[in-house]
Amino acid sequence: MDAHRWTQTLRVGEGFRLADLDPDTKPGYVGGKSHGARDLAAGLEKLNDLQERLFAESRVGVAKDAVLLVLQAMDSAGKGGIVRHVVGGVDPQGVALAAFKAPTPEERSHDFLWRIEKRLPEPGFIGVFDRSHYEDVLIGKVRELADAAEIERRYDAINEFEARVAASGTRIVKVMLHISPEEQKERLMERLERPDKYWKYNPGDVDERMLWPQYMQAYQTVFDRTSTEAAPWHVIPANAKWYARLAVQELLLAALEDIDPQWPVADFDVEAEKKRLAAS
Amino acid sequence: MDAHRWTQTLRVGEGFRLADLDPDTKPGYVGGKSHGARDLAAGLEKLNDLQERLFAESRVGVAKDAVLLVLQAMDSAGKGGIVRHVVGGVDPQGVALAAFKAPTPEERSHDFLWRIEKRLPEPGFIGVFDRSHYEDVLIGKVRELADAAEIERRYDAINEFEARVAASGTRIVKVMLHISPEEQKERLMERLERPDKYWKYNPGDVDERMLWPQYMQAYQTVFDRTSTEAAPWHVIPANAKWYARLAVQELLLAALEDIDPQWPVADFDVEAEKKRLAAS
Repeated sequence: MDAHRWTQTLRVGEGFRLADLDPDTKPGYVGGKSHGARDLAAGLEKLNDLQERLFAESRVGVAKDAVLLVLQAMDSAGKGGIVRHVVGGVDPQGVALAAFKAPTPEERSHDFLWRIEKRLPEPGFIGVFDRSHYEDVLIGKVRELADAAEIERRYDAINEFEARVAASGTRIVKVMLHISPEEQKERLMERLERPDKYWKYNPGDVDERMLWPQYMQAYQTVFDRTSTEAAPWHVIPANAKWYARLAVQELLLAALEDIDPQWPVADFDVEAEKKRLAAS
Repeated sequence: MDAHRWTQTLRVGEGFRLADLDPDTKPGYVGGKSHGARDLAAGLEKLNDLQERLFAESRVGVAKDAVLLVLQAMDSAGKGGIVRHVVGGVDPQGVALAAFKAPTPEERSHDFLWRIEKRLPEPGFIGVFDRSHYEDVLIGKVRELADAAEIERRYDAINEFEARVAASGTRIVKVMLHISPEEQKERLMERLERPDKYWKYNPGDVDERMLWPQYMQAYQTVFDRTSTEAAPWHVIPANAKWYARLAVQELLLAALEDIDPQWPVADFDVEAEKKRLAAS
């Protein structure tokens, strides 16, 4: 659905190797930061128009399509900024945001997809998963929260799940924001240097950081196993925040343009209603 | 909590009569439309700062407060515009929006507050109810969806419910956007004149419109019975959209300033973490 777009180059295909992708690069985009800011503002208008049409379809009951943005990344890679500066520009009435934390005891008592399924966007909505079922094959694998056979089972379960969701009309946009460990160190250090940022810091972030190679390996396996035709992965170099935001916006635009939502036709007699209203 | 603010005059107190409030007026605000636009932009910055502090408290587990904006109005009065232009300026990660439609069979099988309770904002969040439990004493009363004794019971149930919610730390901001029937006619007519607005029109809107006096009477009773110290109503003249948006923003600011959220102190040793991070 993103053929002919500059974000096409970010799509994970056969032979993709995460280790070969430099988080400082801006693949496919020729402009610089200021040009990117202009493109982001222009894209927001398009996004708003498309989103409103999609939402309109849902309100009159004819929408069957939805968009689901799945955001995965190491800490401080910029998921929050995407939510705020890309998704945040859209009418909140048409957005369904789900932030997945460590599962509760109730959630753990079910299959790992149970809590995910419940948060899928309804037709007409743009859903956003801030972390997702992929945590169950990322931290789940690195921290050995499940045994190897269970982790193995999950890749297939995810593919089947996503294929079903896609078949029902949801465009799944899977994004990994890719930063370098050096960039993360700078960003975490900034949080430690500003009292108004302490709340964003968690000592556990450093523990996870020490497992960087293991996480990259787990991501590589995720890409190898779950970048499917129905729900491909996109890996976005994210050391430059502006570039990552622009890329995610472009992916959302591609998904919405693929849906091509139209203003619903009136399911009532417009002229008769005008008369009825005028007389009321 | 809004003493000394210009929105104080919008608060429903003893002897308030809806019929005496002109929807074209802008009580308490001395500036005009362009001044209002500047104040709205300035207020958004304050709102964002306060919201982020509140959200920060929730992330480190120390928030006990929340804000709940309850929006009620006749069709086309501008609830959607409030959500988009006032709430929409805030980081979506800290907003919990609930739009209440006609109850489902499952919802109807429970007490009317059952579905409401489930959508209350968690500590740290700004919750928004687009319509609410008040529908059950508005359309519920006008359309006689419940008998008189049940409607009567509901006012007390609402007051008890809201007192409990307020006592738990949630600032409840109840707003009725007040437009004139003439203004509504213009707005509905515009929807019938623009194919990209047809989706916002429903022939049932005219049916409700024909019951305008009954609805105003039902609102009056709501104000008489449920404008409490813990959860007072504010009636906002809304023929001028800019004024209504500014007033709601001001009410949200008052609620947040009453909470007075602070950047959480670090619950870790900052200097030790800096060293640990630097070494990682």
